[in-house]
Amino acid sequence: MHWKLTVLGSSSALPSFDRMLSAQVLDINSSMLLFDCGEGTQFQLKRFGVRLSRIDYIFISHLHGDHFFGIFGLINTFIMLNRQKKLCIVSPPGLKSLIIDVLDMVNKEPVFPIEFIEIACQSKTLIVNAKDFKVYGFPLKHSIQTNGYLVEQFNRNHRIRPDFLQSNEVSFLWRKRIQEGEDFIASDGQVFKNTEITVESKVKRFAYASDTAYEEKMVTDIADADLLYHEATFGDDLAEEAFKKKHSTASQAAKIAKNAKAAKLLIGHFSSRYRDVDHLRKEAQTIFPETILAYDGLEIEF
Amino acid sequence: MHWKLTVLGSSSALPSFDRMLSAQVLDINSSMLLFDCGEGTQFQLKRFGVRLSRIDYIFISHLHGDHFFGIFGLINTFIMLNRQKKLCIVSPPGLKSLIIDVLDMVNKEPVFPIEFIEIACQSKTLIVNAKDFKVYGFPLKHSIQTNGYLVEQFNRNHRIRPDFLQSNEVSFLWRKRIQEGEDFIASDGQVFKNTEITVESKVKRFAYASDTAYEEKMVTDIADADLLYHEATFGDDLAEEAFKKKHSTASQAAKIAKNAKAAKLLIGHFSSRYRDVDHLRKEAQTIFPETILAYDGLEIEF
Repeated sequence: MHWKLTVLGSSSALPSFDRMLSAQVLDINSSMLLFDCGEGTQFQLKRFGVRLSRIDYIFISHLHGDHFFGIFGLINTFIMLNRQKKLCIVSPPGLKSLIIDVLDMVNKEPVFPIEFIEIACQSKTLIVNAKDFKVYGFPLKHSIQTNGYLVEQFNRNHRIRPDFLQSNEVSFLWRKRIQEGEDFIASDGQVFKNTEITVESKVKRFAYASDTAYEEKMVTDIADADLLYHEATFGDDLAEEAFKKKHSTASQAAKIAKNAKAAKLLIGHFSSRYRDVDHLRKEAQTIFPETILAYDGLEIEF
Repeated sequence: MHWKLTVLGSSSALPSFDRMLSAQVLDINSSMLLFDCGEGTQFQLKRFGVRLSRIDYIFISHLHGDHFFGIFGLINTFIMLNRQKKLCIVSPPGLKSLIIDVLDMVNKEPVFPIEFIEIACQSKTLIVNAKDFKVYGFPLKHSIQTNGYLVEQFNRNHRIRPDFLQSNEVSFLWRKRIQEGEDFIASDGQVFKNTEITVESKVKRFAYASDTAYEEKMVTDIADADLLYHEATFGDDLAEEAFKKKHSTASQAAKIAKNAKAAKLLIGHFSSRYRDVDHLRKEAQTIFPETILAYDGLEIEF
């Protein structure tokens, strides 16, 4: 089954006429995951036909306003739409108390449960371990604590470990049951846990890296991503500005994608100084040909 | 000189495709005053060509999210645009600490001064007494503390009180100087303060009343408004809903305008249940013919 990423906002801190603030939503079929939630995200979700009720997770990269000021309005709308199911919000520390203060101020108590996971990733860390996918956090290099996120989906039809098949007698019927997730009971009554006798096959990886300066270390954290989103606020013309503000150039994003052996690179978070960002595409494609420019409403299936 | 009101958002709590959340900006030539600041207000200001630097005052009616969640992003943008001049924020109590917490969280300290005026209006109260205009607050009737606001502009060419002219000898030259704002010095050296010997002629009044149930008491507070904005979330078909949620119907807004002898009525804050609100216009015009329907981008000069 394909995943679908929809870009909701592709500008950097100052919104432009045709680009809203940072937000992307990933549809992994069983669930939807929102990455960042700049002001206006709820309008963009509506504009691009995303059913709000399908969003189960919100991952905030860092606590700069253009990446999270939309979360108050989105939660407010969830409350008005009478949402019942759990929402999980992952962010660097500090957002939970702010959300609680805001909800308290507007005199609204959500009827749905909110699970807050506050984490300042210093190394690659498993954050969400759901039935059919995992989300890891990894450190980015920005002016404040910033988490990158990596979504990995595992094959639910567990493949039996070849060495187990060689050393144990497993009937055709049992093979099928194990592949469906059952534990194996040998003829002598010994129980083998499913997780111990099967290999989970990774089927898909999406990595989200915004905002960040060039950070070679992340290459191992996001290796073999099917789609890497990496910010590219500036082009080579403003490389110094990028360095100073701890942002990346398009070339740097491309280098990361190349070194991480990503299949595709999506660049965004463009500075509002650029009316046209096609030179950023060219700069990136010189290093990593499979580069796509983000725009609001862009959908990528992979 | 005309004033110009621009409607930035005209929906009620849930934004619709073509209506954004509550916000209106009033250009009184010397300054711009923003009334409410729902999420996305900074985008609408940009969309409708308002120069952000001209906004000196923000008046928040009440602390429901759809009326103030845009203030964080707007302040953030002011900071990024390197604003220097003072901003005055008027609201019911509670907003100041929230804004300070948010700015603290995003690690931004504005270089421009912010004056916070927190007030829970229980009766008509003078809030801003500027050189050429005054702003009063007055109580509305909603589920939480809600302030209405009235802007009054006075004639700067002060008219001399007729009784003063009768009992004092004032030369033609002195009359001119007094009308330009000078104090009067009589031939015996006695000084008469300009404010004591002139009548300020009111030239214009704008009243902002959102959100509120029908509240007859406000009629005296907003008497003779040149333009009254009064919410009309519902039509007669949903009068019970209006009553229950402490909102108004279009007919009720029209009754207030009629009783207050307003020159014009603007209705907005329409429920997202209505695709078309023309029946609200009809209902209001039956009672008060000079009724205008709000839409995003509407400009009214008066």
